[in-house]
Amino acid sequence: MNPVSTDSGYACWLRYEYIENASLRESYLSSCSCYSLLGDSFILMNARKQLAEALSSMLGRVPTESDTGGIIAGTIDSSTELRQITAQYDFDELGEEGYVIHSETEGPIYLAAASDKGVLYAVFHLLRLLQLGANVRNIHIGEKPANALRMINHWDNMDGSVERGYAGRSIFYRDNGFIPHTDRLEDYARLLASVGINAITINNVNVHPRETELITAGLLPDVAKVADLFRGYGIRLYLSINFAAPIEIGGLETADPLDPNVAAWWRDKAKEIYDYVPDFGGFLVKADSEFRPGPFTYGRNHADGANMLADALAPYGGEVIWRCFVYNCLQDWRDRSTDRAKAAYDHFKPLDGQFRDNVLLQIKNGPMDFQVREPVSPLFGGLKATSTLLEVQIAQEYTGQQRHLCYLVPQWKEVLDFDTFARGEGSSVAKAASGALFGRSRGGMAAVSNVGDDANWTGHLLAQANLYGYGRLAWSPALGADEIAKEWIMQTFGRDLTIINIIQNMLLSSLEIYESYTAPLGVGWMVNPHHHYGPNVDGYEYSKWGTYHFADHEGIGVDRTAGTGTGYASQYHPPQSARYESLADCPDELLLFFHHVPYTHVLKSGKTVIQHIYDSHFEGAEQAADLLAQWNSLEGRIDEGCFRQVRERLIHQEEHAREWRDVINTYFYRKSGIPDERSRKIY
Amino acid sequence: MNPVSTDSGYACWLRYEYIENASLRESYLSSCSCYSLLGDSFILMNARKQLAEALSSMLGRVPTESDTGGIIAGTIDSSTELRQITAQYDFDELGEEGYVIHSETEGPIYLAAASDKGVLYAVFHLLRLLQLGANVRNIHIGEKPANALRMINHWDNMDGSVERGYAGRSIFYRDNGFIPHTDRLEDYARLLASVGINAITINNVNVHPRETELITAGLLPDVAKVADLFRGYGIRLYLSINFAAPIEIGGLETADPLDPNVAAWWRDKAKEIYDYVPDFGGFLVKADSEFRPGPFTYGRNHADGANMLADALAPYGGEVIWRCFVYNCLQDWRDRSTDRAKAAYDHFKPLDGQFRDNVLLQIKNGPMDFQVREPVSPLFGGLKATSTLLEVQIAQEYTGQQRHLCYLVPQWKEVLDFDTFARGEGSSVAKAASGALFGRSRGGMAAVSNVGDDANWTGHLLAQANLYGYGRLAWSPALGADEIAKEWIMQTFGRDLTIINIIQNMLLSSLEIYESYTAPLGVGWMVNPHHHYGPNVDGYEYSKWGTYHFADHEGIGVDRTAGTGTGYASQYHPPQSARYESLADCPDELLLFFHHVPYTHVLKSGKTVIQHIYDSHFEGAEQAADLLAQWNSLEGRIDEGCFRQVRERLIHQEEHAREWRDVINTYFYRKSGIPDERSRKIY
Repeated sequence: MNPVSTDSGYACWLRYEYIENASLRESYLSSCSCYSLLGDSFILMNARKQLAEALSSMLGRVPTESDTGGIIAGTIDSSTELRQITAQYDFDELGEEGYVIHSETEGPIYLAAASDKGVLYAVFHLLRLLQLGANVRNIHIGEKPANALRMINHWDNMDGSVERGYAGRSIFYRDNGFIPHTDRLEDYARLLASVGINAITINNVNVHPRETELITAGLLPDVAKVADLFRGYGIRLYLSINFAAPIEIGGLETADPLDPNVAAWWRDKAKEIYDYVPDFGGFLVKADSEFRPGPFTYGRNHADGANMLADALAPYGGEVIWRCFVYNCLQDWRDRSTDRAKAAYDHFKPLDGQFRDNVLLQIKNGPMDFQVREPVSPLFGGLKATSTLLEVQIAQEYTGQQRHLCYLVPQWKEVLDFDTFARGEGSSVAKAASGALFGRSRGGMAAVSNVGDDANWTGHLLAQANLYGYGRLAWSPALGADEIAKEWIMQTFGRDLTIINIIQNMLLSSLEIYESYTAPLGVGWMVNPHHHYGPNVDGYEYSKWGTYHFADHEGIGVDRTAGTGTGYASQYHPPQSARYESLADCPDELLLFFHHVPYTHVLKSGKTVIQHIYDSHFEGAEQAADLLAQWNSLEGRIDEGCFRQVRERLIHQEEHAREWRDVINTYFYRKSGIPDERSRKIY
Repeated sequence: MNPVSTDSGYACWLRYEYIENASLRESYLSSCSCYSLLGDSFILMNARKQLAEALSSMLGRVPTESDTGGIIAGTIDSSTELRQITAQYDFDELGEEGYVIHSETEGPIYLAAASDKGVLYAVFHLLRLLQLGANVRNIHIGEKPANALRMINHWDNMDGSVERGYAGRSIFYRDNGFIPHTDRLEDYARLLASVGINAITINNVNVHPRETELITAGLLPDVAKVADLFRGYGIRLYLSINFAAPIEIGGLETADPLDPNVAAWWRDKAKEIYDYVPDFGGFLVKADSEFRPGPFTYGRNHADGANMLADALAPYGGEVIWRCFVYNCLQDWRDRSTDRAKAAYDHFKPLDGQFRDNVLLQIKNGPMDFQVREPVSPLFGGLKATSTLLEVQIAQEYTGQQRHLCYLVPQWKEVLDFDTFARGEGSSVAKAASGALFGRSRGGMAAVSNVGDDANWTGHLLAQANLYGYGRLAWSPALGADEIAKEWIMQTFGRDLTIINIIQNMLLSSLEIYESYTAPLGVGWMVNPHHHYGPNVDGYEYSKWGTYHFADHEGIGVDRTAGTGTGYASQYHPPQSARYESLADCPDELLLFFHHVPYTHVLKSGKTVIQHIYDSHFEGAEQAADLLAQWNSLEGRIDEGCFRQVRERLIHQEEHAREWRDVINTYFYRKSGIPDERSRKIY
């Protein structure tokens, strides 16, 4: 990387920097100076282009097309040589999306797959190996994704705004229409494909009037163009739909899912959509949630609603993805018996087994809403006869809004590794969400995109690591957060060890740092209402949103035990239920989510709750300052443009972390009257 | 009034209902069946129209024009008869706006004034007497306004929005232009003139780009039309201007008030404006306040800025009205030495005497921002060689936003009656603001309008009483709040004693009720940020706006004493300064504005602070419910439409008062741990 350039960061992890190390470059040239890639589908043409351009860029020489050596890539149907060489691999088992990368000490590097898409993934895999400086000889990789569905959700509106968007305006829409030039979308599709994303929704789950029209003849031609573009990268297009569409655009007087006219309307609508988009993925539905319409209006349940849509899509192979983010958002804060955390389980657990095969329930990682710390949603262990998707939020709505550094992969890893005990020990969320635990073929992950039209896509340059990491993790939940971080850093900033170590350390410590200076011990929230940025301890305390901490002069926390509280803890299987139920066993970091305790309660760490609050906030603010110091040490080592844009955000983070520290500490000092043991400044 | 009609309330206090009482009607007919009104100026034509239509409406007979009896009205220059009859009155002393109403046991009722405007006011006065059912024989009234300037400020934006508007959209603007049809403005001007308003600003003090153009050739023709319309009702038009206009629309590189080019630009601009509006009132300026531009940018002070504009307007008789709402709105909440309450005095007191004669400083009633309870701004006693305007807010930004009933006249009365002791005892704000105290001819009151395009003008029908009351009080600060309420009720709802008593009781108790369930004991705020509606105790506690209560587990309040606090109390003259400084003497209702006290501090009422908080909030919510009960008792007695629209708001108020009660009580119970002596439900 050239330190005097001022790069925006637009290329993300697909920079394909020229390899300065001559011996490494030479060794790659000896294996990769020519290539052959058979076939002319859109996907394969994109794969070929990607391979040729990336090799040219990294190796400084345009590779020649030749079928006698170098890289030989294609589907196993297309080439006897590929079929023979990779005969040892079980392509049935690798499936449509799996692939093989095979090389011996000498000879070609073979990329083979059952489908074009698999070939594309293999190309990106090989190119990643080259970017990482890996040895490309004696490779014997047979790889397939752990999740069938690896989806990105855009909360983009057609006016160009992005709900919970922190990186500029929409890359899809402007002025209530599609942005006509699609270069940026093409680059985006390439980025997503490079990490294995295979599905996308392009409009907000809150479907407003204009977006309701996406499934009408006026907009379907535009939708089809976008679908075509993404199809070229193996990404299937889905749309968020408005459950009340039959009324709003269909002229019906009802959207009752059991009304035959409504079902017929959706059947006709599905046919119309598939005329434009033959491989249309299906519908994402936020129904009966936060003022969105849904089957409740008609006295029907979520299964009635989802199944009706599923039946309309089934003839064409489409799916319904139905969100479980359903709760009473008009709760009276005085009512302590209602618990928003329980709502998703209470709504959907009784319906387990009642959904059509082509319905997936999309479940947020936690029972609340993307807080920096929540327990894992008990629905993952609860649903055994229903396909599911784990929903995470790459957009950092509650984790610093891409102005604070917060590498989220460790959080997602914790969720994926959480043992639900649904089928005894070892019943991880990863297995539950993918469907493997229950022998279901559908399943996977969905994530809210953190992308906008900022030059660097994600506002905070280092937030690109979350987009990258999400894709990698959705492909393989077994990957380590550190491993993913390192991959991303090397592809983005090169192979300088100092750079790698410093940025990796920054990324891996960032979630814990953010947690330490924000809401303590799993209690969540404490943010300003609406925009959700910055500290406000009582911001949601007297609201209708079901998000409370119940702090008084003696203590804090929400009693969610079955014994004395809301009973949420019993939504888990043993032993998790017992662990959360017990004040002694409940992990510190979730203590206030499950228990109301006095400030003098002693944590497993040996500290009182109040002293923990003080300490973690003082330390967190110091660590935020240290993030800036670490970054500053990279000045001159990395591109000046990238350096400056990140420094600017880290300067803000340092200051804002102090604001968090002081507001939280002052609030609890004023409320508890208990002084800091170390007599630091509290206002 | 017809109980089966469904009146919107559009006519306000100028209903001129047919007088059902036959003997009263006959007695009026004997005096008022004919009239003569000499002159044909726009003002006199409006006066004539008003007189004829109102008499027709009330008496059921179109009055005839005749100069031989009935009502004889005109300027003293226009009629020897009038001059002779009213020779006993001192028209020099009554001035341009004063008038005489004179009648004996028999013969004509004479309305005479030095100017057309005086005649108009006399007509409205006489019509008011008729609406009130007063005797119109043997009247000997010589009346003039106490304040030279009686102004309404509109915070209307040209996009049609109204900043802090709670009654619909702007009546002036739509889609960044003027609303073409002016019927509604005509009705508005008539309403304002009927209570003696003589000046108006028609655009927001926060002057955005579009409104900056109001003083350009593109919009001045429209401004002139509006000015013409208001001129016909004796109301002079002023504009809010953007101090940075020389840059934004003038093409200059600076707005430095001491730059000759800037001064020249404003001189040319003044000339241009007066070409369109020959009696243009002048400029209202919010400078160096809440991100508005001003002289500070150039190292100049407010006098430099105001005087430069004043010099530009002086040749044409224009004035500069310069707002004193200047403070640091980027305060660090951790900084307890800065006190927003002190800012206006600190900024403007040192400049006293440095302003041109045609500059008036517009001072908000209190040092903060239109809270339900604040002390009176010490600037009224501080400025002795500067003309001033007392600014109040008819719009109920912090007093229920025209959804809660809050009759503000008692608050304004308290302010007007407050003794500044600037010239010893008896130095009321009323005298200071009018200029009388310091022998200055300019002065008066300004108020932020509560009017929008809602059918009833003010959203809450009963909020019309505030618009009416403001005008009456600006004319005569000596009027009682009860007297004004009664006048308004009788003109709006008729002369039924039950109606009068109930509504008068509702109005007169409403401010105290609102205060009792919102922020306690003068501490202010505790509202949701930005929109300022609904309870949020810490809403502004950790903000940059300088608005804190400092509540901790032991106590609450802001120490503004000179002894141990910010020193704000010393901005008053003795004995007020000593009264506020002393914990023993400080009035209960302002205790927390001036002192930080423990919750166990015993008030003059004998209650502790915490018990006062509990009691007042429980009682306030009960009284809010009682307001609804009182109103419900009027069902069938008043117009159904009016009844229903008010009932709807009172139902909301009852519920919202309970929300206030519970949030405030819960907050303080949780924080203090001190239980309610009466063991009522606190959450």
